Amino acid sequence: MFLEIAHLEIKAGEEAEFERKVSQAVPHFMAAKGCKGISLHRCVENPSQYQLNVIWETVENHMVDFRATEGFQQWRALAGPHFATPPWVEHTHEIKL
Amino acid sequence: MFLEIAHLEIKAGEEAEFERKVSQAVPHFMAAKGCKGISLHRCVENPSQYQLNVIWETVENHMVDFRATEGFQQWRALAGPHFATPPWVEHTHEIKL
Repeated sequence: MFLEIAHLEIKAGEEAEFERKVSQAVPHFMAAKGCKGISLHRCVENPSQYQLNVIWETVENHMVDFRATEGFQQWRALAGPHFATPPWVEHTHEIKL
Repeated sequence: MFLEIAHLEIKAGEEAEFERKVSQAVPHFMAAKGCKGISLHRCVENPSQYQLNVIWETVENHMVDFRATEGFQQWRALAGPHFATPPWVEHTHEIKL
């Protein structure tokens, strides 16, 4: 399993609307091949900064499969207008402690 | 609940030793007031980059209570020598989707 971490900076004053749009986009992620979950986290120190976390079976499920879907287009149509800067995306895998 | 996200860049070649040190430090976190869990995530695109996630009841449990403990000193003694750059720490709270 891999965790996509999308670092998102949202335009000032549009945070509540952005959060509603993410809720609307959840089914587009969950319908995608290999998607196992999604959560949204808002930064305390900089409240216009969010971290969208999506669990994928493989990195390719996100970068290749999902990006080729209509659902990805829907997600970007919903959330994209609220981005203050281009998203920065990375993938992580959990280290067993 | 709040999630501490510590962005850690580790010296090249010291990643395996760093991971062992984090495992050794887990009891110091779990013994701290308000600590509810800890996990470590390694970046796929930049494998010297890690995200340490710690769940706290309050931000103060991390920033005030934990930092005053012997356990915090132990954590920094274990992991600190492997940091390539100073850690960057933020806190987030989860948005209900």
